[in-house]
Amino acid sequence: MTAKIAINGYGTIGKRVALAVKAQKDMKVVGVVKTRPTFEAWTAVENGFKLYTPSKSVAAMEEAGLAVAGTQEELIEEADLVVDATPGKIGDEMAALYRSLGKKAIFQGGEEHELCGTSFNAYSNYSEALGKDLVRVVSCNTTGLARTLYPLWEAGYVRGVLATMVRRAADPGDSKKGPINAIEPSLKVPSHHGPDVQTVIPGLPISTVAVKVPTTLMHLHSVAVELKKNVKPETIIDRWSPLRRIMLIDGSKGLPSTAQVMEMARDMGRPFSDLWEIAVWRDGVHVKDGVLYYFQAVHQESDVIPENVDCIRAMLQMETDPQRSIDETDRRMGVGVRRR
Amino acid sequence: MTAKIAINGYGTIGKRVALAVKAQKDMKVVGVVKTRPTFEAWTAVENGFKLYTPSKSVAAMEEAGLAVAGTQEELIEEADLVVDATPGKIGDEMAALYRSLGKKAIFQGGEEHELCGTSFNAYSNYSEALGKDLVRVVSCNTTGLARTLYPLWEAGYVRGVLATMVRRAADPGDSKKGPINAIEPSLKVPSHHGPDVQTVIPGLPISTVAVKVPTTLMHLHSVAVELKKNVKPETIIDRWSPLRRIMLIDGSKGLPSTAQVMEMARDMGRPFSDLWEIAVWRDGVHVKDGVLYYFQAVHQESDVIPENVDCIRAMLQMETDPQRSIDETDRRMGVGVRRR
Repeated sequence: MTAKIAINGYGTIGKRVALAVKAQKDMKVVGVVKTRPTFEAWTAVENGFKLYTPSKSVAAMEEAGLAVAGTQEELIEEADLVVDATPGKIGDEMAALYRSLGKKAIFQGGEEHELCGTSFNAYSNYSEALGKDLVRVVSCNTTGLARTLYPLWEAGYVRGVLATMVRRAADPGDSKKGPINAIEPSLKVPSHHGPDVQTVIPGLPISTVAVKVPTTLMHLHSVAVELKKNVKPETIIDRWSPLRRIMLIDGSKGLPSTAQVMEMARDMGRPFSDLWEIAVWRDGVHVKDGVLYYFQAVHQESDVIPENVDCIRAMLQMETDPQRSIDETDRRMGVGVRRR
Repeated sequence: MTAKIAINGYGTIGKRVALAVKAQKDMKVVGVVKTRPTFEAWTAVENGFKLYTPSKSVAAMEEAGLAVAGTQEELIEEADLVVDATPGKIGDEMAALYRSLGKKAIFQGGEEHELCGTSFNAYSNYSEALGKDLVRVVSCNTTGLARTLYPLWEAGYVRGVLATMVRRAADPGDSKKGPINAIEPSLKVPSHHGPDVQTVIPGLPISTVAVKVPTTLMHLHSVAVELKKNVKPETIIDRWSPLRRIMLIDGSKGLPSTAQVMEMARDMGRPFSDLWEIAVWRDGVHVKDGVLYYFQAVHQESDVIPENVDCIRAMLQMETDPQRSIDETDRRMGVGVRRR
């Protein structure tokens, strides 16, 4: 059986999940929902996806010359699972729609944990999503923290975590948001990221603060981990190196900032020039006075994409073993394939 | 007696120290050294300062139409103390020159502590500079940390400090440096700022990490202080509020980022639209689980200016009481005068 997946919303996340699902052998995209006839609606069609739209939007889409395969409800009816990639603030409404049609759905990190009651990160809690009807894949920042912290937590190294999130102001394709020449602290402390990580790593003692800066490429996390035992940087790096969704990089080898990291991703020739892996600077890993320090860069548009694919497999119980799903997702997408 | 001050270098720091010294009653600027006939040489003359230059530059300056009052050596001979605001990397050479002419000198934070053996912050260690020949006023970032941390350290609140420095990429008048759309971690951990703070607050347990971002206005520090006792945010704020060189601001009152903070400074009508005070967000001060969190913004071009004035008084033993020097400096410059 090939799982039938509907993609509701074809923006930053939706278009990426659509391509990632298309790359798998055990699932397929039955259609995508777009509400307005933007350039992204055209690229959906060019990528071979059937276009659906809410009934009130059919006329506008057809007027723009786009072939509409049916309504949003018709697409959802046809699917085994919906990946919700709609913009924020309509999660409740959408969840009610999926429930009324008896369909499973994945939400994204913009929604609250409470909407679904289950949050997801493939490394830390795949099994919790098995058979569930509604699951939230946590945000890009939370995914980044979970990927690098879980292996340390699992190993019993972590007494406490303080992470400073230096956040990009807007995505590269956005020209509406700022700041353009300023640094903006999130005056709410701790920021929401800490509790969010706890939805996928329960019990992790973590506190986070966040600052927004004028860049579009990636988020950067400065992480300080109070260690339970005196562990060497090499031991930490050894924990991370087998994990394909963590990419160890070297500042000393021409990658001093997020600019070069994303330039490397462009060289790799992936869809949208994405970097699905969390980039961790090997030469930025230090242990001083019982505290581990490291820096990681998070490609906010794409690190959650493989997580969505795994979450589909867990919810539809297509694969009960986390590692086998992760291996399959990564192999089909090309996650963890390094530069030569 | 009015102390005779020479300003060696009339760039970002030199031009500001010159105006601040000029504003005092117990000291005066006997001349400034400029090595090239840039626009800043002209503004020095327009501000009424006599222009000196190394002998090898006299011809070039006069050719450009600038009246040269004498050579660098002649100016130093005439002065009681030299404020060195020359660009980096010539500290050793300059220190040798001042020593050979038997003159006291202040260096800036770009130099190493070892050059002078004494580092200076008016709040934390004024008395250490009394009568000294060579003293270094610590950098903008170190000054910012010392101003807000010393009152907490003195009160016995501090068990340990972890500060994340989100640094501006370049000064507003600079178009040579980046990043322009990236976040660049300082992979050396801890960054040099922690040990630098310890040169003015010996024994303070502090660790710092630094990240550079594409903005020009101010640095921003995200500070986490492990507390020795459970202190309320209000108590912390009460420690800071009598101090004129700390400005408590509210994000909720239209000051969410460094952009608005510097816009406020422009409205205040100060020379160069400077903000000498460290701006601390009152609504960003939080205590959670025994850790104090706060954010502060540092105007990198100007926060060290009042410190230079106090350092002059200490070195020339014009005033042995720190508070009386600070009061005088602040009154003459207008430090701590808030918006109505």
